[in-house]
Amino acid sequence: MTALDNQLRDRTVSPAVTTGPITGSRKVYREAGEGLRVPARRVELSNGAHLDLYDTSGPYTDPETTIDVRTGLLRLRQGWSGRRQPVRGAATQLAWARAGIVTEEMEFIAAREGVDVELVRTEVARGRAIIPANHRHPESEPMIIGKKFLVKINANIGNSAVISSIEAEVDKMVWATRWGADTIMDLSTGKRIRETREWLLRNCPVPVGTVPIYEALERCGGDPAALSWEIYRDTVIEQCEQGVDYMTVHAGVLLRYVPLTADRVTGIVSRGGSIMAAWCLAHHRESFLYEYFTELCEILRRYDVAFSLGDGLRPGCIADANDTAQLAELKTLGELTQIARRHGVQVMIEGPGHVPLHKIVENVRLEEEWCDEAPFYTLGPLVTDIAPAYDHITSAIGAAVIAQAGTAMLCYVTPKEHLGLPDRDDVKTGVIAYKIAAHSADLAKGHPRAQAWDDALSAARFEFRWADQFALALDPDTARSYHDETLPAPAAKTAHFCSMCGPKFCSMRISADVQAYAREHGLSSAAAIEAGMREKSAEFTAAGKQLYLPVADV
Amino acid sequence: MTALDNQLRDRTVSPAVTTGPITGSRKVYREAGEGLRVPARRVELSNGAHLDLYDTSGPYTDPETTIDVRTGLLRLRQGWSGRRQPVRGAATQLAWARAGIVTEEMEFIAAREGVDVELVRTEVARGRAIIPANHRHPESEPMIIGKKFLVKINANIGNSAVISSIEAEVDKMVWATRWGADTIMDLSTGKRIRETREWLLRNCPVPVGTVPIYEALERCGGDPAALSWEIYRDTVIEQCEQGVDYMTVHAGVLLRYVPLTADRVTGIVSRGGSIMAAWCLAHHRESFLYEYFTELCEILRRYDVAFSLGDGLRPGCIADANDTAQLAELKTLGELTQIARRHGVQVMIEGPGHVPLHKIVENVRLEEEWCDEAPFYTLGPLVTDIAPAYDHITSAIGAAVIAQAGTAMLCYVTPKEHLGLPDRDDVKTGVIAYKIAAHSADLAKGHPRAQAWDDALSAARFEFRWADQFALALDPDTARSYHDETLPAPAAKTAHFCSMCGPKFCSMRISADVQAYAREHGLSSAAAIEAGMREKSAEFTAAGKQLYLPVADV
Repeated sequence: MTALDNQLRDRTVSPAVTTGPITGSRKVYREAGEGLRVPARRVELSNGAHLDLYDTSGPYTDPETTIDVRTGLLRLRQGWSGRRQPVRGAATQLAWARAGIVTEEMEFIAAREGVDVELVRTEVARGRAIIPANHRHPESEPMIIGKKFLVKINANIGNSAVISSIEAEVDKMVWATRWGADTIMDLSTGKRIRETREWLLRNCPVPVGTVPIYEALERCGGDPAALSWEIYRDTVIEQCEQGVDYMTVHAGVLLRYVPLTADRVTGIVSRGGSIMAAWCLAHHRESFLYEYFTELCEILRRYDVAFSLGDGLRPGCIADANDTAQLAELKTLGELTQIARRHGVQVMIEGPGHVPLHKIVENVRLEEEWCDEAPFYTLGPLVTDIAPAYDHITSAIGAAVIAQAGTAMLCYVTPKEHLGLPDRDDVKTGVIAYKIAAHSADLAKGHPRAQAWDDALSAARFEFRWADQFALALDPDTARSYHDETLPAPAAKTAHFCSMCGPKFCSMRISADVQAYAREHGLSSAAAIEAGMREKSAEFTAAGKQLYLPVADV
Repeated sequence: MTALDNQLRDRTVSPAVTTGPITGSRKVYREAGEGLRVPARRVELSNGAHLDLYDTSGPYTDPETTIDVRTGLLRLRQGWSGRRQPVRGAATQLAWARAGIVTEEMEFIAAREGVDVELVRTEVARGRAIIPANHRHPESEPMIIGKKFLVKINANIGNSAVISSIEAEVDKMVWATRWGADTIMDLSTGKRIRETREWLLRNCPVPVGTVPIYEALERCGGDPAALSWEIYRDTVIEQCEQGVDYMTVHAGVLLRYVPLTADRVTGIVSRGGSIMAAWCLAHHRESFLYEYFTELCEILRRYDVAFSLGDGLRPGCIADANDTAQLAELKTLGELTQIARRHGVQVMIEGPGHVPLHKIVENVRLEEEWCDEAPFYTLGPLVTDIAPAYDHITSAIGAAVIAQAGTAMLCYVTPKEHLGLPDRDDVKTGVIAYKIAAHSADLAKGHPRAQAWDDALSAARFEFRWADQFALALDPDTARSYHDETLPAPAAKTAHFCSMCGPKFCSMRISADVQAYAREHGLSSAAAIEAGMREKSAEFTAAGKQLYLPVADV
């Protein structure tokens, strides 16, 4: 227990969070050697089978666990890093991976992803994957970000000067991870930044990222020109001490790049980027983030905090995509990647933003070439600017395409993007939209476990196992409620038709007839099946040509 | 006035539909020669500029027009086709285009799309684009479906045996076209199919498609085996007489293909496909749609009804995508395309369905190769099966990708897909999601008018012209309401910050400062700008480093 823990416990703040299993699922753990218990969301099916799904929801969905946000989660990783010696000064997953050491985190991840642990170690050693796991955030369940693994998604939360509270943010964090957020970023800019973050970290089962320049700016009363390396450094150290797992650092916004944005339609749209641009303008000096980058590396490696090198000059509209400013910064991020890695610090690279479909893949190609395949972490991108209120959709399109091309983590966008702060419903909608984008890329990339999920759901659909179909859905509750709207009767949940066609005729039933016939007659090849078709025809007619169930079944 | 019109007018049915302009827009017409008035949705901007957008909403958004659903819309195209002679027996846009004749429809479309009329004529003559325009549906405003034009979207409506009414369907049609549906399909399967269709056609400003086998099946009491060419033919003729503009015909579901679906995870999921498969099984005969295809061509060309050759064997899940059954049928659709074209009948080809991202482009390539580039018209495709209740998103992803690859029209999917019948809200959500997919493909394909829309909206965003941003949005009402949730004060609609960052600092303002400076000092190149940066630095500091407006402005 730290002093801060005690301080927090004395407060009256006690966020209420959502607990209990996801409808139709239950939490299971698989032993992965030496006391490692890897969580999964198990869907038990009505046909006796089950499917285990990757589970980011932490202990909140485990009814066996008592949740008390005042004491925080079990410190799962307590002591893991302490048992290992630093390698050339670096006590990081990268340093250990390079030295051939398999950490508990790597073992856990291999079991969680269903891959060989050597794949985990070698990808981390190569810098093509990172394991964001600050020694001071032992509550987090190990996960990996890299293109050879499941595509991950991040949910941004955080209060602002306009709205929100600590309670709301803790609830949003639990809610976002419940629906599948692999990491969360606390982007708070308002009051009580430090306190909000402490509540989040002590209760968060996934890695937490921040943008330290936001808090540093608050310490300067909101005046970018008053920022300094010393203020920034002290902020970073405090956040490292608290347990932040990765930090966005806009060290690629160089003084000479700022004029490149002058002719843009939307200039600089990154908050961090604009703060640094303002600082550079005010002092006419090179960015202190760039000049002190090696010192920053030395701080982050003490805790194994990963860099998320920010794209402060990302395009804010279709017109500005892939322009000189954006690409100049990306090249600089490549240089910084090499410096960070030499210090044994893990690195990922942030990407855009707003990009039309035909310019998306080029972003991945250049990032991989210039940044030596460091994991790419993109915000969408939005593929058009014309749909405010639907930017979870405009960006899920871009996210799916960029993830298929190799992006390792996708930062979600909610329906409120450009318009307001996301509430609880927006957070869920954003997470689900991004789980869709990530999973569609997993399918396209041939992740060994991906298609089993689709196949299980489609088999349930074809066999009219409605309850199984709901339970296997990304969002079982909404799927069921939509079905209820049209066919509320409990019997409809076992009906052999759906509300689209109604009971009078149903394509799925005919197909089932054909398939059942093939199986019964041992007709495994198309030729053999065709040979039996005449017989089938007679039988089909004799059976009364039943293509539907009586309406009375409704 | 037909007898049916009189019959309808006597009924008490009188659907209430949504009228009046879209928020922030007004209806304008441009003269396109010889009395052709081409509608557009004009957004007047607060900076004095305006932007005209493609407008599918018909007279309903024109306050100058009196709407009375009992009398139907103005018969805009009345007599156009009658003024032209058939060419070799075909009074169709295809026949006229081949003969070098430019029709009024082509003129209208050229003005509407902003392209040369010869591009319209040659693409139609080549069979690479179609103009669905039954002589008997003079209420429709001409539009074109082809890959060199704006990507179009279709909205399915229609009652079922389970739910819905004529009133609800007419309202949904008006609602769908209001938000951007380029065509609608009436997929009614329940009571009063013919009467519903009459109401829709007489009030519909866009082409209407149907699947005549649905009505034919109703005439057989729901028994597929009782279907016959004669029943089907009579149904088709009646629908042609009423004014249906294009018809889905599943003539590629051949007897020998049915067994190819036996090992599928979800068999046959197309309603039309399953009906024909059932008929083939019951009679062990080749499909009457295939055997009588030339007679069908002769009927359709009398009215200039276009074929939409249905993919009755489309995949119903990820596992079945691009399989032998699907591709066998596609090849047959290619043969039928040639037959239809020889008869002077316009043709498009329907496509899937459920396809993972990495198998999407192959669908377009094969369709273009086998079907001689007939316009492709796809249902999504959904890129994963795991998200029932969010299939507007899973399919918008696939729709954007397949449209970028050359699909000419996208059939929307609503959040209720697989679960229930879409209500009014679902229709709007589906249409908006598909407008996003279509527009993102227009951008990627470089349609000359596409990016101006994004640029206008982004410029409004950057300049904090909130009202302009809302007016330019695909859905102005929802965009505004989301902004109101966080910042309801009227002053916030002119505030120089957004609710994401709040008033304390705003990236867009800093960018505006940089840009204003460059303009004032005549610094047009990056080098020149950089030279002036030291001066800017001094000025910026002297100006009090203003990065934000006082909070009191909120």
